Amino acid sequence: MTIRFSCLSLLATFAAGVLSPVVLAAPPAAVDTAPTYTVDGRIVPPKNYRQWVFLSSGVDMSYNKKAMASKVPMFDNTFVPRAAYQSFLKTGTWPDKTQIVLEVRGSAHDKSINHRGHFQSGAPMAIEMHVKDSKRFKGGWAFFGVDADTMQPAKQIPTDRACYSCHKAHGAVDTTFVQFYPELLPIARKLDTLSDGYLNDE
Amino acid sequence: MTIRFSCLSLLATFAAGVLSPVVLAAPPAAVDTAPTYTVDGRIVPPKNYRQWVFLSSGVDMSYNKKAMASKVPMFDNTFVPRAAYQSFLKTGTWPDKTQIVLEVRGSAHDKSINHRGHFQSGAPMAIEMHVKDSKRFKGGWAFFGVDADTMQPAKQIPTDRACYSCHKAHGAVDTTFVQFYPELLPIARKLDTLSDGYLNDE
Repeated sequence: MTIRFSCLSLLATFAAGVLSPVVLAAPPAAVDTAPTYTVDGRIVPPKNYRQWVFLSSGVDMSYNKKAMASKVPMFDNTFVPRAAYQSFLKTGTWPDKTQIVLEVRGSAHDKSINHRGHFQSGAPMAIEMHVKDSKRFKGGWAFFGVDADTMQPAKQIPTDRACYSCHKAHGAVDTTFVQFYPELLPIARKLDTLSDGYLNDE
Repeated sequence: MTIRFSCLSLLATFAAGVLSPVVLAAPPAAVDTAPTYTVDGRIVPPKNYRQWVFLSSGVDMSYNKKAMASKVPMFDNTFVPRAAYQSFLKTGTWPDKTQIVLEVRGSAHDKSINHRGHFQSGAPMAIEMHVKDSKRFKGGWAFFGVDADTMQPAKQIPTDRACYSCHKAHGAVDTTFVQFYPELLPIARKLDTLSDGYLNDE
Protein backbone atom coordinates (compact mmCIF):
# COMPACT_ATOMS: atom_id res chain seq x y z
CA MET A 1 0.00 0.00 0.00
CA THR A 2 1.44 3.34 -1.05
CA ILE A 3 0.11 6.84 -0.51
CA ARG A 4 -2.13 6.34 -3.54
CA PHE A 5 -4.46 4.27 -1.39
CA SER A 6 -4.56 6.58 1.56
CA CYS A 7 -5.49 9.68 -0.36
CA LEU A 8 -7.71 10.59 -3.30
CA SER A 9 -4.52 10.70 -5.23
CA LEU A 10 -5.44 10.48 -8.86
CA LEU A 11 -8.12 12.70 -8.93
CA ALA A 12 -8.42 11.28 -15.81
CA THR A 13 -24.41 19.06 -32.64
CA PHE A 14 -25.50 19.47 -35.25
CA ALA A 15 -23.47 20.66 -38.21
CA ALA A 16 -24.86 22.13 -41.38
CA GLY A 17 -26.55 19.64 -43.68
CA VAL A 18 -27.33 17.11 -40.97
CA LEU A 19 -30.39 14.90 -41.17
CA SER A 20 -32.81 14.91 -38.28
CA PRO A 21 -31.42 13.03 -35.31
CA VAL A 22 -33.26 9.98 -34.01
CA VAL A 23 -33.38 9.72 -30.25
CA LEU A 24 -32.70 6.34 -28.65
CA ALA A 25 -35.96 4.65 -27.76
CA ALA A 26 -35.63 4.78 -23.98
CA PRO A 27 -34.38 7.98 -22.38
CA PRO A 28 -31.63 7.23 -19.85
CA ALA A 29 -32.63 7.08 -16.22
CA ALA A 30 -31.35 9.92 -14.05
CA VAL A 31 -28.39 8.94 -11.89
CA ASP A 32 -26.89 12.16 -10.57
CA THR A 33 -27.23 12.87 -6.88
CA ALA A 34 -25.73 15.04 -4.22
CA PRO A 35 -23.99 13.29 -1.32
CA THR A 36 -26.12 11.45 1.19
CA TYR A 37 -25.12 10.44 4.71
CA THR A 38 -26.25 8.02 7.36
CA VAL A 39 -27.59 9.49 10.58
CA ASP A 40 -24.18 8.91 12.20
CA GLY A 41 -22.39 10.89 9.48
CA ARG A 42 -21.00 8.18 7.23
CA ILE A 43 -21.23 8.81 3.49
CA VAL A 44 -23.34 6.53 1.33
CA PRO A 45 -21.22 5.41 -1.65
CA PRO A 46 -23.08 6.10 -4.90
CA LYS A 47 -23.86 2.77 -6.50
CA ASN A 48 -24.08 4.17 -10.00
CA TYR A 49 -20.95 6.32 -10.16
CA ARG A 50 -19.84 4.43 -13.28
CA GLN A 51 -22.62 6.30 -15.08
CA TRP A 52 -21.17 9.65 -14.00
CA VAL A 53 -18.76 11.68 -16.10
CA PHE A 54 -15.25 10.26 -16.37
CA LEU A 55 -12.50 12.74 -15.54
CA SER A 56 -9.44 10.69 -16.45
CA SER A 57 -7.41 7.62 -15.68
CA GLY A 58 -3.79 7.06 -14.82
CA VAL A 59 -1.65 3.99 -14.44
CA ASP A 60 0.65 3.14 -11.53
CA MET A 61 0.77 6.70 -10.28
CA SER A 62 2.41 7.56 -6.99
CA TYR A 63 3.42 10.74 -5.22
CA ASN A 64 6.10 8.87 -3.32
CA LYS A 65 9.53 9.37 -4.90
CA LYS A 66 10.70 6.04 -3.54
CA ALA A 67 7.72 4.05 -4.82
CA MET A 68 8.58 0.94 -6.82
CA ALA A 69 6.76 -0.02 -9.98
CA SER A 70 4.15 -2.68 -9.34
CA LYS A 71 4.36 -6.06 -11.04
CA VAL A 72 0.83 -5.75 -12.34
CA PRO A 73 0.05 -2.16 -13.32
CA MET A 74 -2.93 -0.63 -11.59
CA PHE A 75 -5.29 1.85 -13.16
CA ASP A 76 -7.24 4.56 -11.43
CA ASN A 77 -10.46 6.02 -12.85
CA THR A 78 -12.10 9.18 -11.58
CA PHE A 79 -15.76 10.21 -11.91
CA VAL A 80 -18.05 13.15 -11.00
CA PRO A 81 -21.80 13.64 -11.43
CA ARG A 82 -22.72 15.20 -14.75
CA ALA A 83 -24.21 18.33 -13.15
CA ALA A 84 -20.94 19.02 -11.31
CA TYR A 85 -18.97 18.47 -14.51
CA GLN A 86 -21.16 20.83 -16.50
CA SER A 87 -20.81 23.42 -13.74
CA PHE A 88 -17.02 23.14 -13.91
CA LEU A 89 -17.12 23.69 -17.67
CA LYS A 90 -18.86 27.04 -17.05
CA THR A 91 -17.08 28.23 -13.92
CA GLY A 92 -13.69 26.49 -13.77
CA THR A 93 -14.38 25.14 -10.31
CA TRP A 94 -16.60 22.66 -8.45
CA PRO A 95 -20.05 23.53 -7.11
CA ASP A 96 -20.99 22.73 -3.55
CA LYS A 97 -22.17 19.08 -3.11
CA THR A 98 -19.68 17.79 -5.70
CA GLN A 99 -18.67 14.18 -5.18
CA ILE A 100 -15.54 12.80 -6.82
CA VAL A 101 -15.13 9.01 -6.89
CA LEU A 102 -11.76 7.39 -7.51
CA GLU A 103 -11.64 3.67 -8.21
CA VAL A 104 -8.53 1.51 -8.54
CA ARG A 105 -8.57 -1.45 -10.94
CA GLY A 106 -6.12 -4.18 -11.74
CA SER A 107 -4.99 -4.92 -15.27
CA ALA A 108 -4.29 -7.71 -17.71
CA HIS A 109 -1.84 -7.92 -20.55
CA ASP A 110 -1.66 -10.91 -22.87
CA LYS A 111 -5.30 -11.87 -23.12
CA SER A 112 -7.75 -12.20 -25.98
CA ILE A 113 -6.20 -10.50 -29.00
CA ASN A 114 -4.11 -7.98 -27.05
CA HIS A 115 -0.33 -8.40 -27.21
CA ARG A 116 1.08 -5.17 -25.88
CA GLY A 117 0.31 -2.72 -23.12
CA HIS A 118 -2.39 -3.26 -20.52
CA PHE A 119 -6.14 -3.06 -20.20
CA GLN A 120 -8.29 -2.83 -17.10
CA SER A 121 -9.58 -6.09 -15.73
CA GLY A 122 -11.59 -7.31 -12.76
CA ALA A 123 -13.67 -5.62 -10.10
CA PRO A 124 -12.61 -2.39 -8.33
CA MET A 125 -9.86 -3.01 -5.76
CA ALA A 126 -10.32 0.24 -3.86
CA ILE A 127 -12.67 3.21 -3.92
CA GLU A 128 -12.13 6.62 -2.43
CA MET A 129 -14.32 9.69 -2.37
CA HIS A 130 -13.62 13.40 -2.15
CA VAL A 131 -16.75 15.37 -1.27
CA LYS A 132 -17.44 19.09 -1.17
CA ASP A 133 -20.06 20.02 1.37
CA SER A 134 -19.31 23.45 2.77
CA LYS A 135 -21.75 23.44 5.65
CA ARG A 136 -20.69 20.00 6.81
CA PHE A 137 -16.90 19.91 6.44
CA LYS A 138 -14.30 22.31 7.76
CA GLY A 139 -12.33 23.53 4.74
CA GLY A 140 -15.22 22.54 2.49
CA TRP A 141 -14.07 19.05 1.48
CA ALA A 142 -13.72 15.61 3.07
CA PHE A 143 -12.16 12.29 2.06
CA PHE A 144 -13.67 8.84 2.53
CA GLY A 145 -12.22 5.38 2.03
CA VAL A 146 -14.91 3.00 0.76
CA ASP A 147 -14.83 -0.79 0.91
CA ALA A 148 -15.12 -1.65 -2.78
CA ASP A 149 -16.51 -5.12 -2.06
CA THR A 150 -19.34 -4.14 0.25
CA MET A 151 -19.92 -0.49 -0.77
CA GLN A 152 -21.16 0.15 2.75
CA PRO A 153 -21.41 3.68 4.21
CA ALA A 154 -17.91 4.95 5.05
CA LYS A 155 -16.47 7.12 7.80
CA GLN A 156 -14.65 10.34 7.00
CA ILE A 157 -10.86 10.06 6.87
CA PRO A 158 -9.51 12.18 9.77
CA THR A 159 -8.51 15.68 8.73
CA ASP A 160 -4.96 15.29 10.06
CA ARG A 161 -4.11 12.80 7.31
CA ALA A 162 -1.74 13.80 4.54
CA CYS A 163 -4.38 13.75 1.80
CA TYR A 164 -5.89 16.98 3.15
CA SER A 165 -2.66 18.96 3.38
CA CYS A 166 -1.32 17.58 0.09
CA HIS A 167 -4.48 18.35 -1.87
CA LYS A 168 -4.61 21.81 -0.32
CA ALA A 169 -0.97 22.54 -1.15
CA HIS A 170 -0.82 21.07 -4.66
CA GLY A 171 -4.33 20.64 -6.06
CA ALA A 172 -4.70 22.75 -9.20
CA VAL A 173 -8.29 23.82 -8.43
CA ASP A 174 -10.07 24.00 -5.09
CA THR A 175 -7.93 21.22 -3.49
CA THR A 176 -8.54 18.81 -6.41
CA PHE A 177 -5.93 17.45 -8.83
CA VAL A 178 -7.31 19.03 -11.97
CA GLN A 179 -3.73 18.91 -13.31
CA PHE A 180 -4.43 15.24 -14.03
CA TYR A 181 -7.74 15.90 -15.88
CA PRO A 182 -6.77 16.92 -19.39
CA GLU A 183 -10.24 18.15 -20.38
CA LEU A 184 -10.56 20.44 -17.36
CA LEU A 185 -7.07 21.89 -16.94
CA PRO A 186 -7.35 24.19 -20.00
CA ILE A 187 -10.72 25.45 -18.72
CA ALA A 188 -9.30 26.29 -15.30
CA ARG A 189 -6.41 28.08 -16.99
CA LYS A 190 -8.76 30.05 -19.22
CA LEU A 191 -11.09 30.99 -16.38
CA ASP A 192 -8.19 31.79 -14.06
CA THR A 193 -9.15 29.39 -11.29
CA LEU A 194 -5.77 27.66 -10.88
CA SER A 195 -4.45 27.69 -7.31
CA ASP A 196 -1.35 29.58 -6.25
CA GLY A 197 0.10 26.29 -5.01
CA TYR A 198 -0.25 24.68 -8.41
CA LEU A 199 1.11 27.72 -10.24
CA ASN A 200 4.13 27.74 -7.93
CA ASP A 201 4.69 24.01 -8.55
CA GLU A 202 4.59 24.66 -12.29
CA MET B 1 0.74 3.92 -36.68
CA THR B 2 -0.23 0.45 -35.59
CA ILE B 3 -3.48 -1.38 -36.07
CA ARG B 4 -4.79 0.35 -32.96
CA PHE B 5 -5.29 3.47 -35.03
CA SER B 6 -6.95 1.80 -37.96
CA CYS B 7 -9.58 0.00 -36.00
CA LEU B 8 -11.75 0.73 -33.01
CA SER B 9 -9.36 -1.49 -31.21
CA LEU B 10 -9.99 -0.92 -27.58
CA LEU B 11 -13.64 -1.09 -27.63
CA ALA B 12 -13.95 -1.28 -23.31
CA THR B 13 -29.37 4.76 -3.18
CA PHE B 14 -30.34 5.06 -0.50
CA ALA B 15 -29.43 2.75 2.34
CA ALA B 16 -31.29 2.41 5.59
CA GLY B 17 -30.89 5.36 7.93
CA VAL B 18 -29.97 7.85 5.23
CA LEU B 19 -30.89 11.48 5.49
CA SER B 20 -32.84 13.11 2.70
CA PRO B 21 -30.68 13.65 -0.38
CA VAL B 22 -30.16 17.17 -1.63
CA VAL B 23 -30.23 17.55 -5.38
CA LEU B 24 -27.58 19.70 -7.04
CA ALA B 25 -29.01 23.10 -7.89
CA ALA B 26 -28.99 22.79 -11.68
CA PRO B 27 -30.10 19.51 -13.23
CA PRO B 28 -27.58 18.35 -15.84
CA ALA B 29 -28.35 19.17 -19.46
CA ALA B 30 -29.25 16.19 -21.63
CA VAL B 31 -26.39 15.06 -23.87
CA ASP B 32 -27.29 11.64 -25.20
CA THR B 33 -28.13 11.33 -28.86
CA ALA B 34 -28.43 8.74 -31.58
CA PRO B 35 -26.04 9.02 -34.52
CA THR B 36 -26.57 11.83 -36.99
CA TYR B 37 -25.24 11.99 -40.55
CA THR B 38 -24.67 14.59 -43.17
CA VAL B 39 -26.72 14.34 -46.36
CA ASP B 40 -23.75 12.64 -48.06
CA GLY B 41 -23.56 9.96 -45.37
CA ARG B 42 -20.71 11.15 -43.20
CA ILE B 43 -21.19 10.80 -39.45
CA VAL B 44 -21.31 13.89 -37.25
CA PRO B 45 -18.89 13.36 -34.35
CA PRO B 46 -20.67 13.97 -31.03
CA LYS B 47 -19.09 17.03 -29.44
CA ASN B 48 -20.08 16.06 -25.91
CA TYR B 49 -19.02 12.41 -25.84
CA ARG B 50 -16.87 13.14 -22.76
CA GLN B 51 -20.16 13.43 -20.87
CA TRP B 52 -21.21 9.93 -21.97
CA VAL B 53 -20.57 6.82 -19.90
CA PHE B 54 -16.94 5.68 -19.73
CA LEU B 55 -16.42 2.03 -20.63
CA SER B 56 -12.73 1.65 -19.82
CA SER B 57 -9.23 2.75 -20.68
CA GLY B 58 -6.09 0.90 -21.65
CA VAL B 59 -2.50 1.92 -22.11
CA ASP B 60 -0.28 1.15 -25.09
CA MET B 61 -2.48 -1.66 -26.31
CA SER B 62 -1.85 -3.34 -29.63
CA TYR B 63 -3.13 -6.41 -31.38
CA ASN B 64 0.08 -6.66 -33.39
CA LYS B 65 2.46 -9.24 -31.89
CA LYS B 66 5.44 -7.37 -33.31
CA ALA B 67 4.43 -3.97 -31.96
CA MET B 68 7.12 -2.15 -30.00
CA ALA B 69 6.38 -0.25 -26.81
CA SER B 70 6.04 3.47 -27.44
CA LYS B 71 8.43 5.93 -25.80
CA VAL B 72 5.52 7.91 -24.39
CA PRO B 73 2.68 5.61 -23.35
CA MET B 74 -0.66 6.33 -24.98
CA PHE B 75 -4.00 5.88 -23.30
CA ASP B 76 -7.29 5.04 -24.96
CA ASN B 77 -10.65 5.94 -23.43
CA THR B 78 -13.96 4.55 -24.63
CA PHE B 79 -17.43 6.08 -24.18
CA VAL B 80 -21.08 5.28 -24.99
CA PRO B 81 -24.29 7.26 -24.45
CA ARG B 82 -25.90 6.61 -21.09
CA ALA B 83 -29.07 5.16 -22.63
CA ALA B 84 -27.04 2.57 -24.56
CA TYR B 85 -25.07 1.71 -21.42
CA GLN B 86 -28.22 1.26 -19.35
CA SER B 87 -29.66 -0.93 -22.09
CA PHE B 88 -26.53 -3.12 -22.02
CA LEU B 89 -26.87 -3.54 -18.25
CA LYS B 90 -30.34 -5.00 -18.80
CA THR B 91 -29.82 -7.03 -21.97
CA GLY B 92 -26.11 -7.83 -22.21
CA THR B 93 -25.87 -6.31 -25.67
CA TRP B 94 -26.07 -3.00 -27.50
CA PRO B 95 -29.33 -1.45 -28.74
CA ASP B 96 -29.64 -0.19 -32.28
CA LYS B 97 -28.23 3.36 -32.73
CA THR B 98 -25.44 2.75 -30.22
CA GLN B 99 -22.37 4.93 -30.80
CA ILE B 100 -19.04 4.00 -29.25
CA VAL B 101 -16.33 6.66 -29.23
CA LEU B 102 -12.67 5.76 -28.72
CA GLU B 103 -10.20 8.55 -28.07
CA VAL B 104 -6.43 8.26 -27.85
CA ARG B 105 -4.50 10.55 -25.48
CA GLY B 106 -0.85 11.11 -24.78
CA SER B 107 0.59 10.93 -21.29
CA ALA B 108 2.95 12.63 -18.88
CA HIS B 109 5.06 11.21 -16.10
CA ASP B 110 7.17 13.38 -13.82
CA LYS B 111 4.97 16.42 -13.48
CA SER B 112 3.36 18.20 -10.58
CA ILE B 113 3.57 15.87 -7.57
CA ASN B 114 3.53 12.62 -9.54
CA HIS B 115 6.72 10.55 -9.49
CA ARG B 116 5.72 7.16 -10.83
CA GLY B 117 3.50 5.79 -13.56
CA HIS B 118 1.67 7.94 -16.08
CA PHE B 119 -1.36 10.17 -16.29
CA GLN B 120 -3.23 11.39 -19.33
CA SER B 121 -2.21 14.74 -20.71
CA GLY B 122 -3.07 16.99 -23.62
CA ALA B 123 -5.82 17.01 -26.22
CA PRO B 124 -7.10 13.87 -27.99
CA MET B 125 -4.66 12.63 -30.63
CA ALA B 126 -7.13 10.42 -32.49
CA ILE B 127 -10.83 9.61 -32.34
CA GLU B 128 -12.61 6.64 -33.80
CA MET B 129 -16.26 5.67 -33.77
CA HIS B 130 -18.07 2.35 -33.96
CA VAL B 131 -21.75 2.82 -34.74
CA LYS B 132 -24.66 0.38 -34.78
CA ASP B 133 -27.33 1.36 -37.25
CA SER B 134 -28.97 -1.75 -38.63
CA LYS B 135 -30.93 -0.17 -41.45
CA ARG B 136 -27.95 1.83 -42.68
CA PHE B 137 -24.94 -0.52 -42.39
CA LYS B 138 -24.50 -4.00 -43.77
CA GLY B 139 -23.67 -6.24 -40.81
CA GLY B 140 -25.22 -3.64 -38.50
CA TRP B 141 -22.09 -1.71 -37.54
CA ALA B 142 -19.68 0.75 -39.17
CA PHE B 143 -16.34 2.31 -38.23
CA PHE B 144 -15.34 5.95 -38.70
CA GLY B 145 -12.02 7.70 -38.26
CA VAL B 146 -12.54 11.24 -36.95
CA ASP B 147 -10.08 14.12 -37.15
CA ALA B 148 -9.65 14.93 -33.45
CA ASP B 149 -8.55 18.50 -34.18
CA THR B 150 -11.42 19.56 -36.40
CA MET B 151 -14.16 17.10 -35.32
CA GLN B 152 -15.62 17.42 -38.80
CA PRO B 153 -18.08 14.85 -40.21
CA ALA B 154 -16.22 11.67 -41.15
CA LYS B 155 -16.57 9.11 -43.90
CA GLN B 156 -17.16 5.46 -43.10
CA ILE B 157 -14.06 3.25 -43.10
CA PRO B 158 -14.44 0.80 -46.01
CA THR B 159 -15.86 -2.56 -44.97
CA ASP B 160 -12.91 -4.50 -46.41
CA ARG B 161 -10.59 -3.14 -43.70
CA ALA B 162 -9.32 -5.46 -40.99
CA CYS B 163 -11.26 -3.76 -38.20
CA TYR B 164 -14.52 -5.28 -39.45
CA SER B 165 -13.28 -8.86 -39.75
CA CYS B 166 -11.27 -8.67 -36.50
CA HIS B 167 -14.15 -7.29 -34.46
CA LYS B 168 -16.49 -9.86 -35.97
CA ALA B 169 -14.13 -12.75 -35.22
CA HIS B 170 -12.97 -11.73 -31.74
CA GLY B 171 -15.38 -9.17 -30.26
CA ALA B 172 -16.91 -10.61 -27.08
CA VAL B 173 -20.37 -9.14 -27.74
CA ASP B 174 -21.95 -8.13 -31.04
CA THR B 175 -18.58 -7.32 -32.72
CA THR B 176 -17.45 -5.10 -29.80
CA PHE B 177 -14.50 -5.72 -27.49
CA VAL B 178 -16.48 -6.11 -24.28
CA GLN B 179 -13.61 -8.30 -23.03
CA PHE B 180 -11.81 -5.01 -22.32
CA TYR B 181 -14.73 -3.45 -20.40
CA PRO B 182 -14.54 -4.88 -16.89
CA GLU B 183 -17.96 -3.63 -15.80
CA LEU B 184 -19.74 -5.18 -18.79
CA LEU B 185 -17.97 -8.51 -19.29
CA PRO B 186 -19.57 -10.14 -16.20
CA ILE B 187 -23.00 -8.96 -17.38
CA ALA B 188 -22.54 -10.48 -20.81
CA ARG B 189 -21.39 -13.71 -19.20
CA LYS B 190 -24.39 -13.78 -16.87
CA LEU B 191 -26.86 -12.97 -19.65
CA ASP B 192 -25.20 -15.42 -22.03
CA THR B 193 -24.50 -12.94 -24.81
CA LEU B 194 -20.80 -13.74 -25.33
CA SER B 195 -19.91 -14.57 -28.93
CA ASP B 196 -18.72 -17.98 -30.05
CA GLY B 197 -15.55 -16.35 -31.36
CA TYR B 198 -14.71 -14.91 -27.96
CA LEU B 199 -15.53 -18.14 -26.14
CA ASN B 200 -13.26 -20.04 -28.53
CA ASP B 201 -10.46 -17.50 -27.95
CA GLU B 202 -10.83 -18.01 -24.21
